[in-house]
Amino acid sequence: MSIRYLTARLAQQIDEELMGAWGAFSIDQLMELAGLSCAQTEKYRRVLVCCGPGNQGGDGLVAARHLRMFGYEPTIYMPKPGSKDIYKRLHKQCDNMKIKSLLPDATIDELRSTLSSTDVILDAIFGFSFKGPVRAPFDEVLPLISSSKKPIVSVDIPSGWNVEKGNEEGVGIVPDVLVSLTAPKEGARSFKGRHFLGGRFVPKAMEERFQLNLPEYLGTEQIVELSQEQEPQRL
Amino acid sequence: MSIRYLTARLAQQIDEELMGAWGAFSIDQLMELAGLSCAQTEKYRRVLVCCGPGNQGGDGLVAARHLRMFGYEPTIYMPKPGSKDIYKRLHKQCDNMKIKSLLPDATIDELRSTLSSTDVILDAIFGFSFKGPVRAPFDEVLPLISSSKKPIVSVDIPSGWNVEKGNEEGVGIVPDVLVSLTAPKEGARSFKGRHFLGGRFVPKAMEERFQLNLPEYLGTEQIVELSQEQEPQRL
Repeated sequence: MSIRYLTARLAQQIDEELMGAWGAFSIDQLMELAGLSCAQTEKYRRVLVCCGPGNQGGDGLVAARHLRMFGYEPTIYMPKPGSKDIYKRLHKQCDNMKIKSLLPDATIDELRSTLSSTDVILDAIFGFSFKGPVRAPFDEVLPLISSSKKPIVSVDIPSGWNVEKGNEEGVGIVPDVLVSLTAPKEGARSFKGRHFLGGRFVPKAMEERFQLNLPEYLGTEQIVELSQEQEPQRL
Repeated sequence: MSIRYLTARLAQQIDEELMGAWGAFSIDQLMELAGLSCAQTEKYRRVLVCCGPGNQGGDGLVAARHLRMFGYEPTIYMPKPGSKDIYKRLHKQCDNMKIKSLLPDATIDELRSTLSSTDVILDAIFGFSFKGPVRAPFDEVLPLISSSKKPIVSVDIPSGWNVEKGNEEGVGIVPDVLVSLTAPKEGARSFKGRHFLGGRFVPKAMEERFQLNLPEYLGTEQIVELSQEQEPQRL
């Protein structure tokens, strides 16, 4: 059985059940494990962690903290910091780790300069609840990231992609690596790079109920690579 | 520099700072990482996870969930389940994973029977805020665990030990493996078995301020083994 690709609606439903009365998870727990997954995919030392204002950005902040713990050199860029309490706490935790954050209103020149001394970009800008179009300030940020020619690792769905239709409009980031969380989204079917799955917290009963057909994670790993064979072709 | 062994008061202070305005961590985050550490120490398939009513028991519940994720067969035993919301949620998460829980009022016979089909015991009964004496029902549970002759992994401080003076009164569990969380406690100085450190979330600034002299964790590991050399002798 092939792994299931989720519609935006199904992804939302799974998220709600995990954090609702049935699943009983707090968002703190799920973000911690999701961000830890993302941090486990990195290979290069200097990581620019680009965070959106929502939960996806929160995953990025958790990843930045674990990256620092693992000995990497993350720098955080939040063009529009989130307003939720958890987002602020996650950023404070990064501050405590002496992780550098660019100012939200960093100039294009500052951003270019930072990009030039970056080995890889972690794209945690938009997640599965993204609905276009790409608005300011991200309409300038996404092209800048794309034009940097640096390797990009995207979290869950590449930023700017339609969650179900992929990069149809061509305005999205085209990453080298994708870390799908919980289960891959429909829009990721057309993704051609290395594809990992993270978010090792889905109960078997839930996996079966939603027929997710998740691959087996190895040992204590928080990520598993999806082979090409596991990605079914669209008719 | 040798790793620092914490007094009960210092352990408490560090915990409060991690979760206070400075550290900005939620208990959900810290428990998730602490429990994940504990799960990473296991080697045997059938694990009886013994949980106390406090935060230590919560770490045990998180460990049980990750153990299941890693392919182990945990069984939970909570002689006195915790009353906090987070404790109940953590147990619900385990129920969702189809992890068997013994009833709190399991008879001695049931407990003996379960112990006979157990490969290893994870002792998450009492933590660093334990102050003796050992009261019911634990005054019966600790001797039963000790007399089972099964390998025991204790979390943070072996249950029944004085956090600073160790197993002076001889009523505590004597484990084969100890997983100290954040930093080892004074009482663990006299521990002779394999000693791991877990809870990979202490910011460097905090480590330095409290002169913890923590060892380096490797790669993405959430535990690190403390060598005998790192455990200074008492005068």
